Amino acid sequence: SCTKLNHSSNITIAWTANAPLSIEEVEVDPPKPGEVRIKIVSSGLCGTDKHILEGKDKVPLPAILGHEGTGIIESIGEGVTTVQPGDKVLIFLLPECGECRFCLHPKGNMSKTLLCHSVCLCNGILSPTGLMLDGTSRFTCRGRKIYHLYGTSTFTEYTVVHEIVVGKIDAAAPLDKVCIMSCAVPIDFGVVFNTARVTPGSTCVIFGLGGIGSAVVMGCKASGASRIIGVDIIEDKFPWARALGVTDCLNPQNLKRPVQEVVVEMTGGGADFAFEAVGLTDTMVAAFESCHVSYGVCVIIGVAPSAAKLSFDPLMLLPGRTLKGATLGEYKTRSCIPKLVTDYMQRKFNTDSLITHQFPFEKINKAFELFRSEHCHEYVYVPA
Amino acid sequence: SCTKLNHSSNITIAWTANAPLSIEEVEVDPPKPGEVRIKIVSSGLCGTDKHILEGKDKVPLPAILGHEGTGIIESIGEGVTTVQPGDKVLIFLLPECGECRFCLHPKGNMSKTLLCHSVCLCNGILSPTGLMLDGTSRFTCRGRKIYHLYGTSTFTEYTVVHEIVVGKIDAAAPLDKVCIMSCAVPIDFGVVFNTARVTPGSTCVIFGLGGIGSAVVMGCKASGASRIIGVDIIEDKFPWARALGVTDCLNPQNLKRPVQEVVVEMTGGGADFAFEAVGLTDTMVAAFESCHVSYGVCVIIGVAPSAAKLSFDPLMLLPGRTLKGATLGEYKTRSCIPKLVTDYMQRKFNTDSLITHQFPFEKINKAFELFRSEHCHEYVYVPA
Repeated sequence: SCTKLNHSSNITIAWTANAPLSIEEVEVDPPKPGEVRIKIVSSGLCGTDKHILEGKDKVPLPAILGHEGTGIIESIGEGVTTVQPGDKVLIFLLPECGECRFCLHPKGNMSKTLLCHSVCLCNGILSPTGLMLDGTSRFTCRGRKIYHLYGTSTFTEYTVVHEIVVGKIDAAAPLDKVCIMSCAVPIDFGVVFNTARVTPGSTCVIFGLGGIGSAVVMGCKASGASRIIGVDIIEDKFPWARALGVTDCLNPQNLKRPVQEVVVEMTGGGADFAFEAVGLTDTMVAAFESCHVSYGVCVIIGVAPSAAKLSFDPLMLLPGRTLKGATLGEYKTRSCIPKLVTDYMQRKFNTDSLITHQFPFEKINKAFELFRSEHCHEYVYVPA
Repeated sequence: SCTKLNHSSNITIAWTANAPLSIEEVEVDPPKPGEVRIKIVSSGLCGTDKHILEGKDKVPLPAILGHEGTGIIESIGEGVTTVQPGDKVLIFLLPECGECRFCLHPKGNMSKTLLCHSVCLCNGILSPTGLMLDGTSRFTCRGRKIYHLYGTSTFTEYTVVHEIVVGKIDAAAPLDKVCIMSCAVPIDFGVVFNTARVTPGSTCVIFGLGGIGSAVVMGCKASGASRIIGVDIIEDKFPWARALGVTDCLNPQNLKRPVQEVVVEMTGGGADFAFEAVGLTDTMVAAFESCHVSYGVCVIIGVAPSAAKLSFDPLMLLPGRTLKGATLGEYKTRSCIPKLVTDYMQRKFNTDSLITHQFPFEKINKAFELFRSEHCHEYVYVPA
């Protein structure tokens, strides 16, 4: 069986931060029990990858980055039962073992595996070791161990991941289009549909009109929101935002008063739903204060810098406001997200316009260059 | 018609903070258009009244305190249509005009009347003028104008309030028992049923086992919570808390580690629902961190001191936690709370045990004395 052989693969390695990725020949070990080896077909570039390359998010290096990917199961380890070689799959940041009491809980999407192994409750969501659950790596380059990223690592021809992070999808799914269903789309649709539960006729305000914010706009529009206010300091994004459904664009730098006061006035009391897709505590407070004092719901999507503190008068909560967070839009990954692919295949929604560029694998550094330069309102993908 | 006559009434006046209430003969003007005059039958003592007497909550003085009351409509002003003389009513802190877009909104319980006239969005929920909506008072004592309290004022034989703050209740309702349905019970049941939506089999933690916390325990028990953890620094409250349904009692002062760490460990990851009924930012953070990282819901009931700041790492939200506030338990007052009285009459629940003492009107200072001395886990009522 091919699971017994090492597999040599072209892989992009981040040796250090603040340097381009390096394409190398890497040995990819066969999957151990409970693991699968995947031939990656397409992978998205996400802000998290950019932050790692810029040294803002610390992970063990050298590592194979990329966490938003699709591919085809190449081989399976002992005991793997939910996928077979040849299956098309999405790869998720969040495992779903389906057996622990957290997975069986009707809400939430953190499995015990994640909580035990890669989540530090004090320091954040993902505090990764860069290793598989058995404490070892499946990647070797020139005799040196190379780290995994969050149990995913998709900027590669082949990767090894745990069975509990892959979800089998429709055999006809176009992998270069659906790879964004692994991370970006569930985050954005999920915060709208699962977390905020945007209602028809409601007023929404979105802080940050980048990739995340743009897809949140799409979700709000699809939910029947009648007014969608977009907030960003880069006005170049406004035409694109309007095309997606934003009805009012605000640049806080051109306002004489704090943007939250302007939103409260524009909406006669505050928005029904506010989303923060920037990742700064100041915009988190502004978003929170922009929503209605009595029934406003504010969802924080952005990830603030380490050790940042969100600070506000608790009386802002008391009249009835809600402040929420969500990881991957509260979707239970393996059991729920493949249905999004089915919905996409049935044309219930179309997220293709979120993919603004596609590059071949070997141009990944050019893709990152563009991603960095364009104050991206787009996703840039690298079909391997 | 009696609405044309002034009515002289025995009323307790708070002339200044940090002094006993004074029983005086007061002229109560007839109700103006849209107002009603009520013969008060029973009134509850609430922490808010205590805070005002202690000078912690600033309101215009001299005033007639008390906001949790029941009575019988004595006369009605021009244009009043929803109640008639002789009707038994509850008096609410929150008006419900039923016509503005906030009242018509399916969620929230702040009407436009409240938002325009007595709520300062910057400084808190209730920033009262101490006057009726027309800018005048209905109370005069020895030639001096006496202020209303939050448009209620129930420590009196007669009061005048706006029609939009009274809710007609069952003619057979025992007013000395149901007056707590005006404030305490909807707050406590509402945060459990409407805000947190406690589910059967869930784990709940309640910070503060005073009057509010005790009724929250009752609500959690009634919702089928299988484990209820009570947290308080006064262990005298524990037997009473256990009798109500608390399964585990914690005194943070006797723990070697922060109480939130102990709760997370005891519950194998965190409570499903956490309630803060103390009113301190430290316990708010402890309650928030006690609930499960992925699906925990924390409801803040306590009112923090002015200018206090709630401060935490936003990563505490990101994995999926929810932080909520609620006023009067999210009940729309006039349209929903009278149904609680009907449920009580039909013995769907019994809150009588929350009323630990009853006093005649003239003993109100003795009631407050007891209320202050006993680190109350009780409500003390004054049938007028």
